[in-house]
Amino acid sequence: MKKNTPGIPEYRLIEKLFGQVLQQLRKECGVSQEELGFESGYHRTYISQLERGKKSPSLQTIFQLAKALKVEPSQIVERIQTLVAPRSK
Amino acid sequence: MKKNTPGIPEYRLIEKLFGQVLQQLRKECGVSQEELGFESGYHRTYISQLERGKKSPSLQTIFQLAKALKVEPSQIVERIQTLVAPRSK
Repeated sequence: MKKNTPGIPEYRLIEKLFGQVLQQLRKECGVSQEELGFESGYHRTYISQLERGKKSPSLQTIFQLAKALKVEPSQIVERIQTLVAPRSK
Repeated sequence: MKKNTPGIPEYRLIEKLFGQVLQQLRKECGVSQEELGFESGYHRTYISQLERGKKSPSLQTIFQLAKALKVEPSQIVERIQTLVAPRSK
């Protein structure tokens, strides 16, 4: 069922794009990985792994991070969708 | 960092609400757990566990299920937000 994008399997793609969006939002907030970790209740190392697409966030994690970044969780997902869309055409 | 809602910890709440939303969307689509499982590439048992809030979906899972249900992943998350909102006031 899993479609491949050249070079990168889709399940890794979503994680990669989540990482990009997380980093963007964190920078827009002007906070460090450490500060975001503190605000969201996660370790800085985990934030770093998420930003590099090395870990897959659970829905709960997305809600926690969104709260710390003062955005709606759906906004994070929307940003990922806009990045996925051009690739799946 | 994790806030409690009376009786149910927030991390379980998100999973519970995801389960409700998943079941709603599946019924709106008029498909069985088995059919949704087939479409999304997951086992019916896993769909059932998700609907009962027994499993936490990863972002990847949300994207796979949304595709099978022909909705945007962000729509799933928005529906959860609207259910979370009244409780956190």
